[in-house]
Amino acid sequence: MLVVAESSADPDVAPFVGDVRVGECLVLVCEDGVRLGFLSPIEREEAAASGLELLSPEDLEVPRAARESSSRGDFWSWVLGRAFLATGLSPSRVAVAGHQAVGVMEEALARLRTDGWSFTDGQEVVRRLRKLKSAAEIEEMRAVAGITGDAFRRLAAILRAAEVRGDELWSEGSRLRVGHLRREVGVVMAANGLGQPEGSLIAPGAQGAVPHNTGDDETVLSARESLIVDLFPARRLFADCTRTFCVGTPPRELATAWGAVREALDLAYARTVAGTRGWDVQRAVCRHFEDLGYPTVLTDESTTRGYVHGLAHGVGYEVHEYPEFRRESSPEAGRIEEGDLVTLEPGLYDPEAGWAVRLEDMVRIGPDGPENLTSLPYEMDPRAWNRA
Amino acid sequence: MLVVAESSADPDVAPFVGDVRVGECLVLVCEDGVRLGFLSPIEREEAAASGLELLSPEDLEVPRAARESSSRGDFWSWVLGRAFLATGLSPSRVAVAGHQAVGVMEEALARLRTDGWSFTDGQEVVRRLRKLKSAAEIEEMRAVAGITGDAFRRLAAILRAAEVRGDELWSEGSRLRVGHLRREVGVVMAANGLGQPEGSLIAPGAQGAVPHNTGDDETVLSARESLIVDLFPARRLFADCTRTFCVGTPPRELATAWGAVREALDLAYARTVAGTRGWDVQRAVCRHFEDLGYPTVLTDESTTRGYVHGLAHGVGYEVHEYPEFRRESSPEAGRIEEGDLVTLEPGLYDPEAGWAVRLEDMVRIGPDGPENLTSLPYEMDPRAWNRA
Repeated sequence: MLVVAESSADPDVAPFVGDVRVGECLVLVCEDGVRLGFLSPIEREEAAASGLELLSPEDLEVPRAARESSSRGDFWSWVLGRAFLATGLSPSRVAVAGHQAVGVMEEALARLRTDGWSFTDGQEVVRRLRKLKSAAEIEEMRAVAGITGDAFRRLAAILRAAEVRGDELWSEGSRLRVGHLRREVGVVMAANGLGQPEGSLIAPGAQGAVPHNTGDDETVLSARESLIVDLFPARRLFADCTRTFCVGTPPRELATAWGAVREALDLAYARTVAGTRGWDVQRAVCRHFEDLGYPTVLTDESTTRGYVHGLAHGVGYEVHEYPEFRRESSPEAGRIEEGDLVTLEPGLYDPEAGWAVRLEDMVRIGPDGPENLTSLPYEMDPRAWNRA
Repeated sequence: MLVVAESSADPDVAPFVGDVRVGECLVLVCEDGVRLGFLSPIEREEAAASGLELLSPEDLEVPRAARESSSRGDFWSWVLGRAFLATGLSPSRVAVAGHQAVGVMEEALARLRTDGWSFTDGQEVVRRLRKLKSAAEIEEMRAVAGITGDAFRRLAAILRAAEVRGDELWSEGSRLRVGHLRREVGVVMAANGLGQPEGSLIAPGAQGAVPHNTGDDETVLSARESLIVDLFPARRLFADCTRTFCVGTPPRELATAWGAVREALDLAYARTVAGTRGWDVQRAVCRHFEDLGYPTVLTDESTTRGYVHGLAHGVGYEVHEYPEFRRESSPEAGRIEEGDLVTLEPGLYDPEAGWAVRLEDMVRIGPDGPENLTSLPYEMDPRAWNRA
C-alpha cells in the first residue's frame, strides 16, 4: 500500500508516523515493513524520529525530479517510481491512500500505469486501521476531551454571569455576541495547545436549528432561547462534544424537546455496545423520537424538523471516522467494536419555531458499554453547571 | 475545469466560493459560468450564499449514489457523472483540481474514463488564479498580518520582562519555556479569531538552526541565544512573518549574521519589483551572502550552514503560493507581478555553533516596489521593541 500526502498531518499518514512532522511525504506499507519517504533534506532528523525505514530525498531523486520534470504530475510519477524501485518492487497492483492534489496525482498515476503499475483504492483499509486506537492515541483523546470540557465550563460561567436586559444577554457592559463566546473557546483551546482546524458551532435559536450552521458572530444572544455549542478541537486527534444552553426559563416546547433528547442519549448509551450495528442504535433512537411525535430521518429522509441527522460517528484523526451509524454502511464500517471511540449525539430541531437541542458525548466502547470521555452537566441552565 | 474537495476550505475551492462553508463539494468551471455542487441537503442555505448556480444533492443523486454504490470511488464517479450531465457536458477532456482522497478519486476517475471522459491536471491553472488577489482577500491578509504583529509584540514584552538567572530566562517565578511562548501566541491568535492550521515555529539556539524545526515546547530559553519565531496564522487566508530575538548581548558571530541578514532584506526589498523573476532576486541575495563569506544553496545545494533555503514565496489560501523564487520555476510560476503577496525571508544558520537568524516580512508588490504588511522592529533585542 502507498500513502501519499501533503504532510504528515494527513489523517492517513498520522497513524504510521506518530508525532513526527514532515511536509510532502509518502508511506509505503510492504510485507517486510513500513517506509517513510520525505522530500525535503532539512526534514531528515524529523523523519528519522519516526523510527521507520526512510526513503530520503536522494533515494527518491527529488532534486533531479524537480529539475527535469515538466509538471507536478511528472515530478510525482518520478518520485513514486523511485520509491517503488528503492523498495525493490516491480510493477504490480498498489492500494493508494492519503490526500493530495487530485489533478497532480491523476497525472502521476497515469504515467505509472503506462509502466505497468495499477492502482486501487486503499482508503478503506486505512480507515479500518484508524479505527483501532493505541493507548497513546486514547490518552491524547482523553486530554483533548478534558480541555474541551474546560471550554464548556468557561462558556457556562459567562452565560451564568450574563445580565438579561429586555431579551438580550449582556456581559460586562456590552451585548453578549456569539463571536465573544467563540473567541473565549479559542483562547481556552490555544492556552492548552489545541487547535480548531474544523472550527466550532456556536449557534443560537434559529441558527442552531440548521444542524451545520456554524453561528453568526455578530448575533446577540437572547434569554429563553436555545444555544447549540458543538466543539471539536484537536491536537493530532480530535474530541467532539455538544451541549445546549438556555438562559432563563426555556419555552415549553424547548424544555420538552430537551427531555426527549436526554432520554434518547440514555437509550443510545444502553444500546451502543460492542457487536451492535450502528444503524440499529440509530433506528432505535429514531423510534424513540417518533413515539414522542417527532418526525425523523427514518421515515422522512428530507425532514428538516425533528431528528434530522445521524446519531453518532467514530472520532480520531478526523472528526468523522469509522464506525458509521448509517443504513448503507458496510459491515466493516458500521459495526461497533470494543475500543472504538464514538460520539453519541441525538438532537431535535425546529427551524420554523427557531429552536434546537443537541447533546453529544464522546465515549469509548468498553466491555461494559460506553465510557463517557466528555463528562459535563447536560442541563441547559448554566446555573446548574455551577454545582457540577 | 472540475474542482473536487473535502470542504470549501480547500485552497482550490475557496477562491470560487468566498466565505461560504460547506463540506464535501465540487466546483465546475464552464464557459457559461461557475457551478457549486454540494452533497448535504442541510448545507442548502450556506451553498446558496455563494451566489453561484448550484448543483444540489438531488441534482447529483447523492442519496441514490450513497445507497447503491459499492465503494467511495463508485459513489464519486456517480456524483461527478451526474454533475457533468446536469451541466449539459458530454464526455470530453476535463482539467481537475482540488484535494481529495487519492485512492477514492483514482477509482472514480478510472470509471469515468471508461465512459469516455479524460482528465488532465488543473492544479496549475488554479494556482495562477489564486495568485490574483481580490480587494477583499488583500484586506483580510492585512488584518491577519496585523494580528500576527500583535502576537510578536506580546512575545517581545514577555522576553523584555524576563529575568536572567545564570543563563536561563525566568518569567513570573518559572523557567521560561518555548511552550509558554507558543501558548501565548495561540491565545493572541484565538482571541482575534485566527487559527494556526500549520502550527508555528518557535525555535531557540540549535533548534532554530534547522530551518523547519518547530521548536521543542519543553526547552528553557537562554540569554545570549538566538530565538527564531516564525508565525503563519490564517483566517481563510494566511499571513507569514519571522523575527529573531536574543535576550542579552548576542555572541559576535550572531550579531554579525543579523547585520548580514538585515542587509539582505534591504536588498530583497530593492530587487523584488514587478516584472522580475523570483530566482534573480534569490540569486542576488545568495551573492550578497557569499561576498560576506557565507556558504549558500547557490553554490552548494546541500549546505546546512549559511543561507540554506528559498528567499521568498507567495502567500494566500496556502502558506506557499505562486510566485515561486526557484531556479526551476516556470515563467508563469516564477514571475513577480504587481499585486502579488509574497514573503521576503533571508536567513543565516549555523547548526554546529547553534544559532540562526531569519527576518521575514510579508509584502505586497505595488507599482513602486514592495509594501510591507508586517511592519515590526527588526531588532533581536526585545528592549528595542519597546520604542516601536
